[in-house]
Amino acid sequence: MTTSAILLISAPDKKGLVFTLTQFIYEHGGNILHAEQHIDEENPFFFMRIEWDLTHFDVPRELILSALEPIQNDWNMDITLSFSDTPTRVALFVSKQDHCLADLLNRVHHQNLNMTIPLIISNHRDHEALARFYDIEYHHFPMLSDNKHDVESKQLGLLNEQHIDLVVLARYMQVLSDDFVAHFPHQIINVHHSFLPAFVGANPYAQAYARGVKLIGSTAHFVTPVLDDGPIIAQHVINVSHKDSLSSFIQKGKELEKQVLTDAVKKYTEHKILVFKNQTVVFD
Amino acid sequence: MTTSAILLISAPDKKGLVFTLTQFIYEHGGNILHAEQHIDEENPFFFMRIEWDLTHFDVPRELILSALEPIQNDWNMDITLSFSDTPTRVALFVSKQDHCLADLLNRVHHQNLNMTIPLIISNHRDHEALARFYDIEYHHFPMLSDNKHDVESKQLGLLNEQHIDLVVLARYMQVLSDDFVAHFPHQIINVHHSFLPAFVGANPYAQAYARGVKLIGSTAHFVTPVLDDGPIIAQHVINVSHKDSLSSFIQKGKELEKQVLTDAVKKYTEHKILVFKNQTVVFD
Amino acid sequence: MTTSAILLISAPDKKGLVFTLTQFIYEHGGNILHAEQHIDEENPFFFMRIEWDLTHFDVPRELILSALEPIQNDWNMDITLSFSDTPTRVALFVSKQDHCLADLLNRVHHQNLNMTIPLIISNHRDHEALARFYDIEYHHFPMLSDNKHDVESKQLGLLNEQHIDLVVLARYMQVLSDDFVAHFPHQIINVHHSFLPAFVGANPYAQAYARGVKLIGSTAHFVTPVLDDGPIIAQHVINVSHKDSLSSFIQKGKELEKQVLTDAVKKYTEHKILVFKNQTVVFD
Amino acid sequence: MTTSAILLISAPDKKGLVFTLTQFIYEHGGNILHAEQHIDEENPFFFMRIEWDLTHFDVPRELILSALEPIQNDWNMDITLSFSDTPTRVALFVSKQDHCLADLLNRVHHQNLNMTIPLIISNHRDHEALARFYDIEYHHFPMLSDNKHDVESKQLGLLNEQHIDLVVLARYMQVLSDDFVAHFPHQIINVHHSFLPAFVGANPYAQAYARGVKLIGSTAHFVTPVLDDGPIIAQHVINVSHKDSLSSFIQKGKELEKQVLTDAVKKYTEHKILVFKNQTVVFD
Repeated sequence: MTTSAILLISAPDKKGLVFTLTQFIYEHGGNILHAEQHIDEENPFFFMRIEWDLTHFDVPRELILSALEPIQNDWNMDITLSFSDTPTRVALFVSKQDHCLADLLNRVHHQNLNMTIPLIISNHRDHEALARFYDIEYHHFPMLSDNKHDVESKQLGLLNEQHIDLVVLARYMQVLSDDFVAHFPHQIINVHHSFLPAFVGANPYAQAYARGVKLIGSTAHFVTPVLDDGPIIAQHVINVSHKDSLSSFIQKGKELEKQVLTDAVKKYTEHKILVFKNQTVVFD
Repeated sequence: MTTSAILLISAPDKKGLVFTLTQFIYEHGGNILHAEQHIDEENPFFFMRIEWDLTHFDVPRELILSALEPIQNDWNMDITLSFSDTPTRVALFVSKQDHCLADLLNRVHHQNLNMTIPLIISNHRDHEALARFYDIEYHHFPMLSDNKHDVESKQLGLLNEQHIDLVVLARYMQVLSDDFVAHFPHQIINVHHSFLPAFVGANPYAQAYARGVKLIGSTAHFVTPVLDDGPIIAQHVINVSHKDSLSSFIQKGKELEKQVLTDAVKKYTEHKILVFKNQTVVFD
Repeated sequence: MTTSAILLISAPDKKGLVFTLTQFIYEHGGNILHAEQHIDEENPFFFMRIEWDLTHFDVPRELILSALEPIQNDWNMDITLSFSDTPTRVALFVSKQDHCLADLLNRVHHQNLNMTIPLIISNHRDHEALARFYDIEYHHFPMLSDNKHDVESKQLGLLNEQHIDLVVLARYMQVLSDDFVAHFPHQIINVHHSFLPAFVGANPYAQAYARGVKLIGSTAHFVTPVLDDGPIIAQHVINVSHKDSLSSFIQKGKELEKQVLTDAVKKYTEHKILVFKNQTVVFD
Repeated sequence: MTTSAILLISAPDKKGLVFTLTQFIYEHGGNILHAEQHIDEENPFFFMRIEWDLTHFDVPRELILSALEPIQNDWNMDITLSFSDTPTRVALFVSKQDHCLADLLNRVHHQNLNMTIPLIISNHRDHEALARFYDIEYHHFPMLSDNKHDVESKQLGLLNEQHIDLVVLARYMQVLSDDFVAHFPHQIINVHHSFLPAFVGANPYAQAYARGVKLIGSTAHFVTPVLDDGPIIAQHVINVSHKDSLSSFIQKGKELEKQVLTDAVKKYTEHKILVFKNQTVVFD
């Protein structure tokens, strides 16, 4: 496997953008492996993911960003640089239910996802054995009526120590404070157990069951200060019918939650998600 | 093709219901072709669709309902009786957009649906040529600010004259009055261009586009006095992405609308839908 | 939870079958919870699954089959009787790949499937730790060129000892002998990693990749003496494109294999599968 | 709407390809609207679709290909150039069944597809009225045992006269000669009523029904001299069960055929399909 560099770029759309970027890569000896772009015509805004082979690239990886600085300034670009040999560092937050947690741990164990999990954080002790099985740090923070600020500040400490890139709320039943969220802008992925924006808030399956829907859904989205309102990354649905009880809604829903959260996390670790105006560009 | 009778039954659940019904059919010489049942365990309530061959059945079809009366009274049943050789009589209501209209007309023409369309009603003249091509009466009722009551009463007159069983709102952009709806309880099917209950009301595609969803949906439901709140019959969804514009949302949505409306109408004409507490039982 | 009895019935179709069965249940005080039937019109043949509450049923469960004998003989019925409180006893056979094994073990652990797993059999030692984690017997039978007959006879011994109802080949890469298969008629479920009958035999993903298909599939079926030809229980597919490599075909395929095998095993443990002429009736 | 130019490019993969192409477009004043690329890593081969706004492009459209010639020669490119304001000219071939024909005509009529249909060719007279309704030439060529060569040569004459870009076999039940196919390399799209390569040849639904499959499929592919073996463009499937008869397989299949053929034709008219080694690259 060759190592590649991946640029995620957002910029106001202007003639010559693609040319300028490909020129930079070509003149330094890079071979483009993948390139995807999108133009939001209303605004108009330009988005690109470009990945190139580093084998004969003549800029050392720690100098690439500074080498790009003139281009970045000229075109007013927002740039993120990643490397294919550097797995995303992910912290998992979980409460009582473990289906998403178990699924993600199993996939990382089988190396299906380009990520490592330095730590798991929970408001319950339930999953300590599972964490030990996979040899992952487990931090238990019981939530009391008045310790939220304190708990979050300790959690932020752990995340910083471990250089966490992404926080995944794998069915974490606590609302994060705005301050916490502000530390990880578009770096916290939540799975909501409905087809948002239907059934915002608590007990979405019970709401869906009462309404007599014929499909239930699940949504993975970035967390923002407004509850269940962040940029949507992925949504899945499954058929239900009069034969389904509320408990089978929940059972089927768990499958969706696993799938949709895995999909979103996978895209993140492949550096394929860009955010613009509370929406996402998710490259294939 | 043999002719069959179809009973749709709702009743409070009690031991012996299935036995009593199958005894009635068996003792009169009927051979059961299909039988499906559902028990709502919460209430508890019993639902059944039972279809039997009339070839050797010794009760003339016009006397079946009265022959069933003792059973019906004993078990407090709600009963509907239909015959496989009697197509459902459907009135189509349509405004400007014709994709659902054209699709239904084409399917009826190819005999894919067990129904006839005695008339089309529209607040526009646009589809007169299409109606003529299929040799169907077309009634144009322009909507003015003050003629709704008058127009609806003429429409009800036409529906009665033609012994209409089902009204299908194939993208009809007028809200029917409560009085009109009361004449056709659970006999009016509407297609709403969203995954209800998300995006109730006007411009659901624009709402969905603004929210950045990754799936759009369409819902066929019975019309009740509360807007977009009637019992849901069928729902379909399709993937969308950042590559889709509002106009491609609408384009994809039209495909969904055709599919979901056809599905719902087909189930109705097969006598497979029962309504209970603002929800539907839709047999396979 | 009440305990219920479940009958699976196949018989030549004749007027009065449903009546006779429901009479039997009613007269002995049973309340029917679910009833599904199917008539194969070509043959014609009748299939039914009927489930009733045992709370007030006046035939002790060990005498139900003999009480049914007269009906069974009169109507030439094939009958299977099960009870909702008696989990299916399943043996898992597995080779090197563990995705189906891990998924089934996890689901049984979370009580999503009404089954117990008394033992795992493998031609490799790889999954002993996993078996130990779930506290399940693990039997290792290395396959040599000349020990197949011997190994199978020991395996049959273990299956008999443990009163196994169903053998699940969870990616087991050995072909079972006709003799072995004959001991478990329609009681061995295999998952084949293609959309059968496309790509029978070895390396189906490589075959599919070479053909340039746009969907890949997976099939769960009963094992019969003819390779990959037994009655199909469930099939799933997923989209692929030019962007997929052979290894991503395999990766996506593993997800399908898990889903389709779980689906089939779930249906079996719910006593919803009947076999007729190398095809299955799978009730909802 | 601005007019754009679209290049479809295939070439042996080499560093600098994207740079060279984007340089050409940039230096002549073009603004790239869409760019998608794919690298087949095994061969390795490069594929690209690039679309740019012609508003300020300084090469007249009839000179673009010759302006590109030096690049084309240097990089050994295979190039196709199209313009967004020039609809694809499509000839429809059809036999008795009209579901695909009616669907395509309706979509073109509603301007959902960027194509015109100068003529319809059929071995039956059945669809003359429909053709007349849409004001399209209809050519009837009855097939006799010995007139195939003669008929095909007349058909080729018509296709040439009308400058046909694409032939669509919308359920055309005649096998085209190798000579005919050679005149339209990767320009003839057929819809096969199975999930290829399962059920090649005649009566695929009957084959699928006999096998007891749980999904049926439909495949749109380019026609090559080997029957049902050409590059696959799109495949769709739908669930079937024991409840389906052969006739409902066929009915459901018709829906798939319409969808999959429309999908493939749409991609063709958007200039999104490239062929390589009997496989397709189909850009989103």
